[in-house]
Amino acid sequence: MSFNTFGHMFRVTTFGESHGVALGCVVDGCPPRIPLTVEEIQRDLDRRRPGQSRFTTQRQEADQVKILSGVMETDAGQVTTGTPIALMIENTDQRSKDYSEIKDKFRPGHADYTYEAKYGLRDYRGGGRSSARETAARVAAGAVARKIIPDVKVRAALVQMGPHKIDRAAWDWDEIGRNPFFCPDKAKAEFFADYLDDIRKKGSSIGAVIEVVAEGVPAGLGAPIYGKLDSDLASALMSINAVKGVEIGAGFGAAELHGEDNADEMRMGNNGPVFLSNHAGGILGGISTGQAVVARFAVKPTSSILTPRRTIDKSGTDTDIMTKGRHDPCVGIRAVPVGEAMVACVIADHLLRHRGQVGF
Amino acid sequence: MSFNTFGHMFRVTTFGESHGVALGCVVDGCPPRIPLTVEEIQRDLDRRRPGQSRFTTQRQEADQVKILSGVMETDAGQVTTGTPIALMIENTDQRSKDYSEIKDKFRPGHADYTYEAKYGLRDYRGGGRSSARETAARVAAGAVARKIIPDVKVRAALVQMGPHKIDRAAWDWDEIGRNPFFCPDKAKAEFFADYLDDIRKKGSSIGAVIEVVAEGVPAGLGAPIYGKLDSDLASALMSINAVKGVEIGAGFGAAELHGEDNADEMRMGNNGPVFLSNHAGGILGGISTGQAVVARFAVKPTSSILTPRRTIDKSGTDTDIMTKGRHDPCVGIRAVPVGEAMVACVIADHLLRHRGQVGF
Amino acid sequence: MSFNTFGHMFRVTTFGESHGVALGCVVDGCPPRIPLTVEEIQRDLDRRRPGQSRFTTQRQEADQVKILSGVMETDAGQVTTGTPIALMIENTDQRSKDYSEIKDKFRPGHADYTYEAKYGLRDYRGGGRSSARETAARVAAGAVARKIIPDVKVRAALVQMGPHKIDRAAWDWDEIGRNPFFCPDKAKAEFFADYLDDIRKKGSSIGAVIEVVAEGVPAGLGAPIYGKLDSDLASALMSINAVKGVEIGAGFGAAELHGEDNADEMRMGNNGPVFLSNHAGGILGGISTGQAVVARFAVKPTSSILTPRRTIDKSGTDTDIMTKGRHDPCVGIRAVPVGEAMVACVIADHLLRHRGQVGF
Amino acid sequence: MSFNTFGHMFRVTTFGESHGVALGCVVDGCPPRIPLTVEEIQRDLDRRRPGQSRFTTQRQEADQVKILSGVMETDAGQVTTGTPIALMIENTDQRSKDYSEIKDKFRPGHADYTYEAKYGLRDYRGGGRSSARETAARVAAGAVARKIIPDVKVRAALVQMGPHKIDRAAWDWDEIGRNPFFCPDKAKAEFFADYLDDIRKKGSSIGAVIEVVAEGVPAGLGAPIYGKLDSDLASALMSINAVKGVEIGAGFGAAELHGEDNADEMRMGNNGPVFLSNHAGGILGGISTGQAVVARFAVKPTSSILTPRRTIDKSGTDTDIMTKGRHDPCVGIRAVPVGEAMVACVIADHLLRHRGQVGF
Repeated sequence: MSFNTFGHMFRVTTFGESHGVALGCVVDGCPPRIPLTVEEIQRDLDRRRPGQSRFTTQRQEADQVKILSGVMETDAGQVTTGTPIALMIENTDQRSKDYSEIKDKFRPGHADYTYEAKYGLRDYRGGGRSSARETAARVAAGAVARKIIPDVKVRAALVQMGPHKIDRAAWDWDEIGRNPFFCPDKAKAEFFADYLDDIRKKGSSIGAVIEVVAEGVPAGLGAPIYGKLDSDLASALMSINAVKGVEIGAGFGAAELHGEDNADEMRMGNNGPVFLSNHAGGILGGISTGQAVVARFAVKPTSSILTPRRTIDKSGTDTDIMTKGRHDPCVGIRAVPVGEAMVACVIADHLLRHRGQVGF
Repeated sequence: MSFNTFGHMFRVTTFGESHGVALGCVVDGCPPRIPLTVEEIQRDLDRRRPGQSRFTTQRQEADQVKILSGVMETDAGQVTTGTPIALMIENTDQRSKDYSEIKDKFRPGHADYTYEAKYGLRDYRGGGRSSARETAARVAAGAVARKIIPDVKVRAALVQMGPHKIDRAAWDWDEIGRNPFFCPDKAKAEFFADYLDDIRKKGSSIGAVIEVVAEGVPAGLGAPIYGKLDSDLASALMSINAVKGVEIGAGFGAAELHGEDNADEMRMGNNGPVFLSNHAGGILGGISTGQAVVARFAVKPTSSILTPRRTIDKSGTDTDIMTKGRHDPCVGIRAVPVGEAMVACVIADHLLRHRGQVGF
Repeated sequence: MSFNTFGHMFRVTTFGESHGVALGCVVDGCPPRIPLTVEEIQRDLDRRRPGQSRFTTQRQEADQVKILSGVMETDAGQVTTGTPIALMIENTDQRSKDYSEIKDKFRPGHADYTYEAKYGLRDYRGGGRSSARETAARVAAGAVARKIIPDVKVRAALVQMGPHKIDRAAWDWDEIGRNPFFCPDKAKAEFFADYLDDIRKKGSSIGAVIEVVAEGVPAGLGAPIYGKLDSDLASALMSINAVKGVEIGAGFGAAELHGEDNADEMRMGNNGPVFLSNHAGGILGGISTGQAVVARFAVKPTSSILTPRRTIDKSGTDTDIMTKGRHDPCVGIRAVPVGEAMVACVIADHLLRHRGQVGF
Repeated sequence: MSFNTFGHMFRVTTFGESHGVALGCVVDGCPPRIPLTVEEIQRDLDRRRPGQSRFTTQRQEADQVKILSGVMETDAGQVTTGTPIALMIENTDQRSKDYSEIKDKFRPGHADYTYEAKYGLRDYRGGGRSSARETAARVAAGAVARKIIPDVKVRAALVQMGPHKIDRAAWDWDEIGRNPFFCPDKAKAEFFADYLDDIRKKGSSIGAVIEVVAEGVPAGLGAPIYGKLDSDLASALMSINAVKGVEIGAGFGAAELHGEDNADEMRMGNNGPVFLSNHAGGILGGISTGQAVVARFAVKPTSSILTPRRTIDKSGTDTDIMTKGRHDPCVGIRAVPVGEAMVACVIADHLLRHRGQVGF
C-alpha cells in the first residue's frame, strides 16, 4: 500500500517537497557491517545536482546530504548497523518566488491538475511533491544500494535525444563523464551541445532515451511471477518523473523479430554458460541470466516551456499559461544518475530476497 | 516480498503449474455485495483459451473455472462477501508427453536455465510455473476486477505484428471480436492471417505489440511516488510472459517530441476539463487525468520454434535443441485478454486505495 | 494491506468458508528442494481434526488435504520447487442444516453482528469465513513451515482450563499425545476429563490457556522495530479464533517482578552463552536469544452454548437465541496444533528474513 | 518485510538511535486537507518526555519535533497534503558518557547480546536502535493519527504497578493528568509515589500494566483473518520496548470464564445495538463492535539497575555488570502515551483500510 516506499528486503521510503524544510529517505533492510561514508553518497548526488552546465536548470541546490541514523564508527571505519539509514537533504534555494501565475492555473503536462483532482489541494511551490527534486533521495538511496552489490557495476547513458540516436559502435563508457549529457558517443555529444542550445534558446524542450546497464549481476536474481526482476525494474524506472516507457533488452524491437533471431543461443564457456547474444537484456522468465541486465527508458520533454499554452484555472475558466523559471531543456539528462540509482536499488533488493529464499 | 501476489487493496495471489493438479488464484480485498457469477469469469477465460484458431497453440484446455470461496447466494443473486475469492482451474490436457528432449537441455529464450540457476531444479513439464498457462489465473482475477469498476471499460487490441502496424485511422473496436488476432483494423487482420500462416508453417514465430485502453477512469487514481498508476501498470504488464517493453501514452515516441507538442493543453468543457490531446496516456504525475488510460506492451516471439538452436545441457555440454510441441506462432495474440485483465486489476486496486486515503 | 495473508518471506494466504466448496492456502516463498509429502501435512491436520473425542465438536470432516502445486517428483522423492504451494481441503460435511434460527439473529460472542456491520451481509452457514474451520489451512501451512526449520522443535500444550492450571513440575511432553487435551500433566488431564464432561453435559463451555515452546531457534532471528519476533508472534497468535491474550516468557507476570529478578543473567557455557533463567521467553529486543521461545495465549470459551441468551435480530428487534449444533465445549483444545502451526510459520518467515538481510 | 514500518494505508516508518544525529518518522498515507500543527504533535511528545518527575529518567531531552514535509499553509491554516509527513527530533542530550562498562559486556535483560548475535555488531551508545527513545517517533506519529479519527478518543492509564492493581471503581480519567503515573485511581497514585520512591532509591525497578481505551470506534473496523483489529493491536503493542504481554477485553481472564458469562448479550437501544457487557473488549471476529476497544499490555521492569548482575562479555568471559546511568525505575509509566499512540495509529489505519474496501 505504501505510496512512497519501494523495495521489499531493501526498502526505500522517500519524503519531502521541493520547497519544504528538507527532503530525504529512510533506507531499511540494509545488511550490517557495510562500510558507508557520507562522501560516497554525496559523490552520486553531485552527479545529479542541477546547475552544473547550461543544459540543466540553473536552480542552485547544494544538495548536501546528512546521515541521520543507521551507521556507527568502528575500527574498520564507519559501517552500517542493520538499522534504518535516514538520509536528509535540506532545501536551501527556496527563493521567495512569485507563484501567482501557477497558483491557480494548471500547467499542461504537469501534475497540477491531477494532484488537485486527487487531493483537493496541491503544493504549487516548485511542483511540491511532484518535483523532480524528489529524485535526489533516490540517488542517495542508490548510493547505499551500490555498497550492497560491490561486484555489480551499474552505469547509465543517454542514448537518444529527440530523434537523434547515438552510434552504438562508438560507445565509450569513459565519454560519459566528459560531456554534460552522460553521452557515450563523443561525436553525438558534440552534436547534442548545439542541438540542445538551440532548443534551450527557443524556450523549448526535448525528450530523451536513457539506457542502464548492470554488469556482474549473478544468474538467479528475480523471481516468478509478480516478483520478476524486469517487472520490478519497469516499476522502478516508470516511477521516475517524466518517464513514459521502459523496455528490457530488445524491448519494443522484439515485436519485430522472429523466434529464431530473438532467442539467445548458448554455448559452454570457460567460466560457465555463455550466451551468443543478449536480446533478453539479461533476464529470462523474470530471473537474471548472468548476462548484463539492460534496461532503457523514455523521458518526455520538460513541460515547463516559454511558449504560452492553453489551459484552465481552478475556477474552470479558460486561460493561457507560460511557465517561466529555471528549467531543464532536456530533463532526461539528469535522469541518467537517477536511472542508475533505481536499478541499483532493485538489484540490491533482489539479491537480499534471493538470499532469503534460496540462500547461497 | 510476495513473489506471487500483486496489488495492495485488491490483491491477487496466483498458484499452479502447467502440469500440476490445478492452477488458480486467490483474490483478496474485493468489496462485498458485488454480483459475481462463474459465467462472467468463464466468459473472459474463454477469450484467452488456446485452440480456438489455427493461430494459437492446439493444446486443448477446457479452462473451466470453479469459485471455491468468497461468494454467497442472496435474494439479489450470487454476490461477493468481502472475504477471499478463490478460483481454481483444473489441468485436464496433461498428455503424458515425452520430455526427454527438454528435461536436461536449456531451451534458448525460455526460463529453463534461469530457474535451474535460481532454484537448483526446475519443473520441465510444459514450462512448469513459467508457462503462459499461469495467465489464465490473471484473466480470472481480471474478471472480478471488472465488477468493481463497472463504469470503466478496459479493452485491448493487437496493434502490431512483426514490423506491421495497424492503420490507426481504421480502428474499429467491433472488429476485435471478428478476427482471431484481436485486431481492430479489418484489412490488417486479413493481412495477418496470411502473414502468420506463413510463419506458422515455417515453424517460426513472431512478436507483437498490444494496446490496452481504459475508458471511464475517473481523475485522481494513482498516487505519488512509488504508487504511481503508470508505475503499477508497468509492473503488471511487464510481469506477463514474454513482455519486453511497456509504454504509456506517447511512450518512447515522447522522446522525440518538443515540450510544446507533448504537453496536452486544456479547455473547459461542458462536463469538466477537456484535454486537447492525450500524449500523457491519461496519467500525469502518476495520477489519472480522467482521459482514457492508454498503455502498450511489446511481446517477444515465442521461443519454442521448429528450427534447431544451439544450447547447452545441465552437465554443461554443448548441444542443439528443437522444441517440438503445440505452440503459439504469435504468443502476443493470447496476451490481449491478459493485458486487459492486468489493467483492470491495477485500476480496481487504485480505486480502492484512493477511496481509502481520500474517500470520495 | 492483505487481509488474508501473513508473513513476509514465508507468506501464507488462506481462503475458504466452512460451508463453501473448499478451503485452503497458498504458501509462497518456500525455499526449493525441500522434501515435502502430503502425508506430512495430513499428519498435522489429523491432530486438529474434530470429532476425535467427546471433548471436541462431533462435526465429521475428513480434512483430506491435496497439494495442487509447488512440488515435483525427483530422484530424491517429492520436493518443493520454490514456487507457490497451494493446499486444498474440500468441505465434505455440509449437511443441509436448518439455519433459520441464526440466519437473522446475532449470536452473542460470535462475529455475526460485526460481519454484518462491516460488509452489509454475512455468510451465516457455519460461521462462514469466521469459522474456526479456517484454522485447518493454518495447520497445513505450518506443516510446510516445519520442513524449513528442521532443527527447531515447535510444540504446544494446554496449560490451563478454566481456573485450573497444570502443575508445571509434572510437565511431560510425552503426555501430550496420550490425552484428548494436549495436556502435559497426566493427573490434571484426568481431572480435565471429568471437569469438561460436566461442562459439556450442561451445554456450557470453558476457556483455556495454551503454551507454545519452540526449541532450537538460533540466536538472531527477529528484527527491530516493527519486525520483532515477539510482535509477529503476538499478531499470529491473536489472529487465531477466540484468542484474547498473548504473552511471551514471564508475560503479564513480568509486571510484578523487580528488575533484578526479571533480567536473565548469563554465563559462558561449553557451547556458547547460557542464560540462567528464561523470563524473556527467548526474545530480547525483538530478537531471539537462542533459548527456547515461549509464548502463551488465552482462548475464550466457545460462544455457542445451549443456554438461551439475549440478543437482537437484523431488524433491530430484541429476541433470544440458543445455538444448537455440534460445538467444542473447550475450543482451546483444538487451538493447540493451531498455535504450533502459527509459531512454526513465524519462525520460518524470520529465518528467511534474517538470511536475506544478514546471510549466515 | 519492512522491519521499521507498520500499518498499511496509514503507514509509519521510524528511524534513529538514541545517540545519532536525530530520530523521527515518515507518516505515509495520511488523508489530505487535515489540519495539523506542530504544536499538536509537540503536546503529545511532551507527555512522553523524560525528566518530568523523579519517577522517570533524568535524561534531559527537549524532544522538539520539526515537520519536514507533507503539510502546507492554506487559508484554513496548516493542513496535510496527502504526501508523506516526515517528523524529526534532534538528539540534544548526547553527553559524552563513558561507555567502557557496557561496550563489551552484555547487559542482562537488554538487547545487547541479541543485536550482537544478529548483526555482528551493536551501537552500544544508549542502547542504539533498541533504546526506548525510538518511542518518541511513535508518539509523534500517533498525534497525526489522532487527527484522522477525531471522533475516536484514545486514552491510556497505568492500572497496575508490581503486584498492586488500581481500584477500578475509583477510575477517574481526570486523575491521569494529575499524577506522574498516568494513574486513574487517586489513592493508588499516592501509594505508588511512596512505593516507587522506595524502589528507585534501592536502585531497583518494577513492572507495570497499562490499559488503553478507545471510545467512539465505529462498528466494522478490522478485517478477517490476518487483518484483525485485535491482531494488529497485539502486534503494535508488543512492539513497544519491554512489553511482554497483550490482551483484549477480558483477556487472560477469559480463560476462566464459562461461555454464558463471557459472551456479551445484546439489546436494541435508542441509537442502535447495545451490548450488556464488554468482555470482548470491543472486538468480535477481529472486527470492532462499536463498544469501547479495550487493550492492556504488560511492561517488564527496567533491566538497567544498580545491582550487579552476572553476565559475559564479547570475548565469552564470565563477568559482572552494574548499569549505572539515568534510567526509569518503572518504564511502564512512560509507556502510557506510547500505548495510546500505537492504538491511535492502528485504528486510523483500519479506518482507511475499511473505507478502501467497503466505502462508507
